Amino acid sequence: MNKTVSFIASVQDELREVEDLMRRQAEGYHPDIRAAMDLLISAGGKRVRPALTILAGKMLGAPPDALLSIATAIEMLHTATLVHDDLIDGSLLRRGMPTLNAKWSPGATVLTGDFIFARAAKLAAETNSVPVMKLFSKTLTVIVEGEIAQLLGSRCTADRESYYKRIYAKTASLFETSAWAAAMVSNADEQTAEAARRYGYEIGMAFQIIDDILDFVGDQNTIGKPVGGDLRQGIVTLPALHYVETHPNDSYAQLLRDGECMNNDQIDCLLTAIRDSDAIQRSHAEAEQYVARGLENLRSLPACAERYALEELAEYIVDRKF
Amino acid sequence: MNKTVSFIASVQDELREVEDLMRRQAEGYHPDIRAAMDLLISAGGKRVRPALTILAGKMLGAPPDALLSIATAIEMLHTATLVHDDLIDGSLLRRGMPTLNAKWSPGATVLTGDFIFARAAKLAAETNSVPVMKLFSKTLTVIVEGEIAQLLGSRCTADRESYYKRIYAKTASLFETSAWAAAMVSNADEQTAEAARRYGYEIGMAFQIIDDILDFVGDQNTIGKPVGGDLRQGIVTLPALHYVETHPNDSYAQLLRDGECMNNDQIDCLLTAIRDSDAIQRSHAEAEQYVARGLENLRSLPACAERYALEELAEYIVDRKF
Repeated sequence: MNKTVSFIASVQDELREVEDLMRRQAEGYHPDIRAAMDLLISAGGKRVRPALTILAGKMLGAPPDALLSIATAIEMLHTATLVHDDLIDGSLLRRGMPTLNAKWSPGATVLTGDFIFARAAKLAAETNSVPVMKLFSKTLTVIVEGEIAQLLGSRCTADRESYYKRIYAKTASLFETSAWAAAMVSNADEQTAEAARRYGYEIGMAFQIIDDILDFVGDQNTIGKPVGGDLRQGIVTLPALHYVETHPNDSYAQLLRDGECMNNDQIDCLLTAIRDSDAIQRSHAEAEQYVARGLENLRSLPACAERYALEELAEYIVDRKF
Repeated sequence: MNKTVSFIASVQDELREVEDLMRRQAEGYHPDIRAAMDLLISAGGKRVRPALTILAGKMLGAPPDALLSIATAIEMLHTATLVHDDLIDGSLLRRGMPTLNAKWSPGATVLTGDFIFARAAKLAAETNSVPVMKLFSKTLTVIVEGEIAQLLGSRCTADRESYYKRIYAKTASLFETSAWAAAMVSNADEQTAEAARRYGYEIGMAFQIIDDILDFVGDQNTIGKPVGGDLRQGIVTLPALHYVETHPNDSYAQLLRDGECMNNDQIDCLLTAIRDSDAIQRSHAEAEQYVARGLENLRSLPACAERYALEELAEYIVDRKF
């Protein structure tokens, strides 16, 4: 059994409950909302975030109902942001499945995203935990502000600080919240909650770095989008940053560093150069360092089956190929 | 001093605090988010909802900080729904001012709405009241579902049940929440909270009925949109319902009742017929009945300056001309 299957397998019953609870959020509402929710659930990914929440919560003795609520709230928050993202990007496919906006009008897509936000907030409130609700709304703010900054910003600059800030907003903030909220509903002490939070943060940063690496070297059919998309959109990610740093005299690297526009041929050359350099390996090593720090934080938490599964989850993140 | 000025005047300091707190929600974020918030605040209406919350909360002894948080959360929730609404409708003006989507890209407008939702949820959480947060997310669900039903539904049918359901979702639900949440943060007993909730509900229903009347008889320049817009969009509101009921043999009324499409000339004739009939007066009488029930509920609440202001607010709702 490979690592993916193994940590997911240990929470597969709970993940089915998460999907059931997601589906129930649309029950009794407009038939098209129910259809949208079904579509989104069937197009769903590996449910890494709720798996993380459930494992952390079970490790820390969370009450099952509150844990299910917050795990589902987090997955729905993630889903709602993807619905609006795909609309804004005009993406017609996600994970090889048609997006909502590929089938629906922009208006219906905006409102479906809003509906899912509303139901996610309701589920977060059902934890009856004020700190969880504060964390939830804070995380939504971070994610949305990150998207606004990316949309309205000038072409992304080739600097590490803005890269780390961007991947925190985009991905690590919700991983952090997935683990932290689990500690909150478990009434964990401050030190435990902080270790859980750090674990989530570190593996979230690693998750996005791997995503960014796969945008260079992944299999287009498996990741479900064209390779090199980030660079073509002017988004500078870690492999490109490593390449710029290690090839200061390369003419393409200079263009990138100076934020110059490149034509398609130049971008193709740069993509090949990055793929052929050690930038991918260096980026991977960096993701592994994040995971190592995540695992270090995990070690202070109770040794149990769930903790081992969380270790596997962390290792899966850097091992995955899509 | 007319009634509008009088009830607003009694909370003008608090309403200024609401606007300040709205503005502060964008502080430290992307400059364009701050600019959007400034634009939305300066284009803001009469702030009837936060005025209602503040008056109800002061009447019931709410802690000032929590009251300010929830009043601002409610106004921001309202603002965020308007941002997405205007985008979906393609409206370029609201209250005579340019909408956000008139100036910004659709993507930036979607995300700004999301940002305001997120900050509204954060403010709701700052009341530290789980019931308030549950009510808040429930209300957002009701509003969004109402919009989805209107957007995806077939042409609105000429029946009262769907009309009342629609104006509850669109307007009365948030008025209800404005009063109810004020009672919740005041730790009011159940009977008091129920009277406050009913007051909010009744005047909210009246508010939307008057809006729907003004769509027939209002001054286009004052209400800031063309008269008869609802009917032209196939939205059947109370004056049209009254007309259909009292003119069963009128050919236009029959077309409307049967949900038939009408051309512009037919709609113009129907608009004139409705305006010249007693449908407007009957609709107004119905709004007055809602207000009377609202006032009845108010009478069980503590007699004080704020209660008198809430009476004025209720009377203003049926007296207003825009």
